[in-house]
Amino acid sequence: MARRRDPTALTEAALSGDRGAMARLISMVEEGGDPAREVGGAMFPRAGKAYTIGITGAPGAGKSTLTDRLIGRIRKEGDSVGVLAVDPTSPFSGGALLGDRVRMQDHATDHDVFIRSMATRGHLGGLALATREAIRVLDACGLPWVLVETVGVGQVEIEVAGASDTTVVVLTPGTGDSVQASKAGLLEVADLFVINKADRPGTQELERDLEFMLHLSDRDDWQPPIVRTVAAAGEGTDDVWSAILEHRRYLERDGHLVERRKQRLRQEVAEIVARRLELRAADACRGEAFERLLADVTGHQLDPYAAAADIVDALAG
Amino acid sequence: MARRRDPTALTEAALSGDRGAMARLISMVEEGGDPAREVGGAMFPRAGKAYTIGITGAPGAGKSTLTDRLIGRIRKEGDSVGVLAVDPTSPFSGGALLGDRVRMQDHATDHDVFIRSMATRGHLGGLALATREAIRVLDACGLPWVLVETVGVGQVEIEVAGASDTTVVVLTPGTGDSVQASKAGLLEVADLFVINKADRPGTQELERDLEFMLHLSDRDDWQPPIVRTVAAAGEGTDDVWSAILEHRRYLERDGHLVERRKQRLRQEVAEIVARRLELRAADACRGEAFERLLADVTGHQLDPYAAAADIVDALAG
Repeated sequence: MARRRDPTALTEAALSGDRGAMARLISMVEEGGDPAREVGGAMFPRAGKAYTIGITGAPGAGKSTLTDRLIGRIRKEGDSVGVLAVDPTSPFSGGALLGDRVRMQDHATDHDVFIRSMATRGHLGGLALATREAIRVLDACGLPWVLVETVGVGQVEIEVAGASDTTVVVLTPGTGDSVQASKAGLLEVADLFVINKADRPGTQELERDLEFMLHLSDRDDWQPPIVRTVAAAGEGTDDVWSAILEHRRYLERDGHLVERRKQRLRQEVAEIVARRLELRAADACRGEAFERLLADVTGHQLDPYAAAADIVDALAG
Repeated sequence: MARRRDPTALTEAALSGDRGAMARLISMVEEGGDPAREVGGAMFPRAGKAYTIGITGAPGAGKSTLTDRLIGRIRKEGDSVGVLAVDPTSPFSGGALLGDRVRMQDHATDHDVFIRSMATRGHLGGLALATREAIRVLDACGLPWVLVETVGVGQVEIEVAGASDTTVVVLTPGTGDSVQASKAGLLEVADLFVINKADRPGTQELERDLEFMLHLSDRDDWQPPIVRTVAAAGEGTDDVWSAILEHRRYLERDGHLVERRKQRLRQEVAEIVARRLELRAADACRGEAFERLLADVTGHQLDPYAAAADIVDALAG
């Protein structure tokens, strides 16, 4: 077994299929700092082959059950699959999993299903950037599918789920979900809508509302299909899977997938740059030199903008 | 009359009491860019004498009426006063004032009362930073009092109102205001609570809730008094004014005011630094050099963190 915190040894072990090593690499990525950078640097050249599916929607919509069904569907194809359950509201990760996510227990002993929860840790830029790094660990380790499930529809969660190759938005009838989905910005990120619990009243209305809003939003090319499921009974899983595969085929035609991933990387680099500069700004606004400058400002000899310009110039030529 | 857009001539005119020139300087400050910097640079060395009072609270609490009463109170002392009405939700400023704020019409023809509304414009860092610059224009032009009234209790508004020497939080009974005030972070910024419409049921309960929450929050030194008013009938204005003067005396003892203003300037400089670096980050993430770097990232030869580090290093040695 690999040494607990040695990135090189852990990477070797993870790449040869050691699930424990994979889990530790993801923890390192979450925690941030230099070890995270080392892991990220080792994983990135090996990543880019996995297909990622984001699953988002309000709490109680049945996302975990649907995820569970999709895991089963992927295993039926004989493929292995990684699952990240992202919870921006929880300070826990990793270990919290087994207690929390009982329904996924079916797969707990399956070596070809790797399930991990992600929560807020020390990673620069927070959970959204850390999740992308965790996906890369699973990707580099040869899992062809990665499911990313989020707990709710907050900003971070939509950012996380929307950064997938296919984003599935799960809604339920009779909950006013269509209006909330629209407000939360879910319409923009959805590649596929699932109406779960479609045996309940209000299914028809929800579908009509969604169609109307999609019509208004006037998407350019891909029209997100709407699929009905009763995930708890296993109904509709094949339809969801077919719709995902259809969206994948669409993306793989005419270079859409390459372009989409390029835009994602562009955004990610810009975000990391912004975060690093934020840290530099915070650093620049303490210490002796700053206090001297501030004394001139409080004495009204130097105005705040001139002082800020001095700091920025000293920092960034 | 000063040339419409010449900062030097406008500054001279404003400093000698030309209200039209003052209004135009404030517009320039709102619009941002180089002219704003020129105005700010000219005003700052002359500013620092005015005492600022922030007035915040939920819409409908009676802030405008109370502001109106305080203007009357200050005029009774023979002092002149500047009033900034800050509305982060409105794209309008300046001109929107006369139509909107009918109640302040009493003072519209009084040369010693300068009323101006502020809204979202082009200023770097938005309304909060622009408002500080507008206060400096009024301050430099010799107005000894500046009232800053905000329309609601959003983040920007609390930031604006909380950046005053004395911050007055206006609440009304029977509206659940105390809980909302607590949630909105108003307890932390308040130096003085006004229960307006105190002839309505629920006044006692609101006062008790506030006292309880203040007790919990355990402030170090100054205990914010709670003053009852019926601003529409002019009741309680003298009590509010006395409480403001008492807080001012408290601040002026033992260097509290100097320290408070220093912290505000510290924060302001840090904020301007952060904003300027943000702009630099955005600049750095476009153009040919960035696209070349991005091509290496999309080819998985360079990981996003390494690319970001390259950009930041090139930008900020």
